[in-house]
Amino acid sequence: MATETRPASTAGGGRRNRQDEVLLAAIEIFHRKGYAAASIQDVADSVGVLKGSLYHYIDSKEDLLARIFEGSDEQSFAMMGAIENRGLTAVERLEAFSRDWSLWHLNNLERASLYFNEWRHLTGERLEQVLQKRHDYEAAVARMINDVKAEGQADPDLDARYAAFYILSAINVLSSWYRRDGPDPPEHIAQVYADMIVGMVCNSRGRKKPRKASRKKKTAA
Amino acid sequence: MATETRPASTAGGGRRNRQDEVLLAAIEIFHRKGYAAASIQDVADSVGVLKGSLYHYIDSKEDLLARIFEGSDEQSFAMMGAIENRGLTAVERLEAFSRDWSLWHLNNLERASLYFNEWRHLTGERLEQVLQKRHDYEAAVARMINDVKAEGQADPDLDARYAAFYILSAINVLSSWYRRDGPDPPEHIAQVYADMIVGMVCNSRGRKKPRKASRKKKTAA
Repeated sequence: MATETRPASTAGGGRRNRQDEVLLAAIEIFHRKGYAAASIQDVADSVGVLKGSLYHYIDSKEDLLARIFEGSDEQSFAMMGAIENRGLTAVERLEAFSRDWSLWHLNNLERASLYFNEWRHLTGERLEQVLQKRHDYEAAVARMINDVKAEGQADPDLDARYAAFYILSAINVLSSWYRRDGPDPPEHIAQVYADMIVGMVCNSRGRKKPRKASRKKKTAA
Repeated sequence: MATETRPASTAGGGRRNRQDEVLLAAIEIFHRKGYAAASIQDVADSVGVLKGSLYHYIDSKEDLLARIFEGSDEQSFAMMGAIENRGLTAVERLEAFSRDWSLWHLNNLERASLYFNEWRHLTGERLEQVLQKRHDYEAAVARMINDVKAEGQADPDLDARYAAFYILSAINVLSSWYRRDGPDPPEHIAQVYADMIVGMVCNSRGRKKPRKASRKKKTAA
């Protein structure tokens, strides 16, 4: 059962609709078969068109994957932007982000799983772009945590970068273990995750970084 | 640079040593090329033996992967057992586990990455065994968290199972983003993670589970 619904094919066949349909079919197929094993032919079969006509919409299988990722990035940054514009305190922003970002993963299992598991198949500029977006997202979460520190709600020594990694890692993996037929609705799990994240950021003892010199042990002469 | 050192080949060629050597070579190759793309020939080349002689030690590529996983499970359960035998309080146990398990990932990047990313390639009984071990491990971590609750150090409503998923997810991903040439030594990162995990478990507000009835909305008649 896909969470994202495919737009119905229209008799007129609007180009934009058909492109969305291709992307949604690709998400489902890349997720089910794995990107490496899936083919453009599979996507064409799913959409119900000849393989050749798919090339009106995409250049290659990798192009298709890259466009899926662009769509995911658009959604994730839009979500974060919406939270930043709601006039919340830093802790409220962190909670809203943790809940909404967890919920996005739970409600978009296939898309989220691709984003987390298949990015290594991109190459060149496409790979660079996805990694840059990921880096920007991590930095935005780290800023959110630094805002909590600035409001005096977290230990000043808490390492915002590692905390951001910790939070994003745990949320990324949601799509691996969550089952749609499990006992709890996505909204409950997302709220539990948000509570844990706020509890962690606001209550973890920070650690000062070790002095650089301690990194490398001198070998005896 | 592999963290695990390979035993030097001995002239006598002890079967056990050679077997370890094969496993360590396979870990490196499966990680570098990906399990699907790697071949038994690659492993034979790395060890410096003919492909045929590898079959004295293993039955198949999947057998090799399964043995790597068995070794990882032995290490992870031994680590947990050692912590349970140290007479610590529940919070100290959780901290020690979080630190040691994080450190295991940071010091065994290739092995940890395989364990997390390549288990889907196992089939039949081998897959069942790995999933069972994973389930047992999650249950052991959930018990650790319940012990913290029983000692009155965490909210009684904290969902130990989701907290265990969260913790294990975040630690599992360490091998994906950690770089050996990064600024901080593994011991520092492991301690930061342990602090965050203890902060999270001991300070998160628990949520009661929603009533089952709220799971499915009734449709209007």
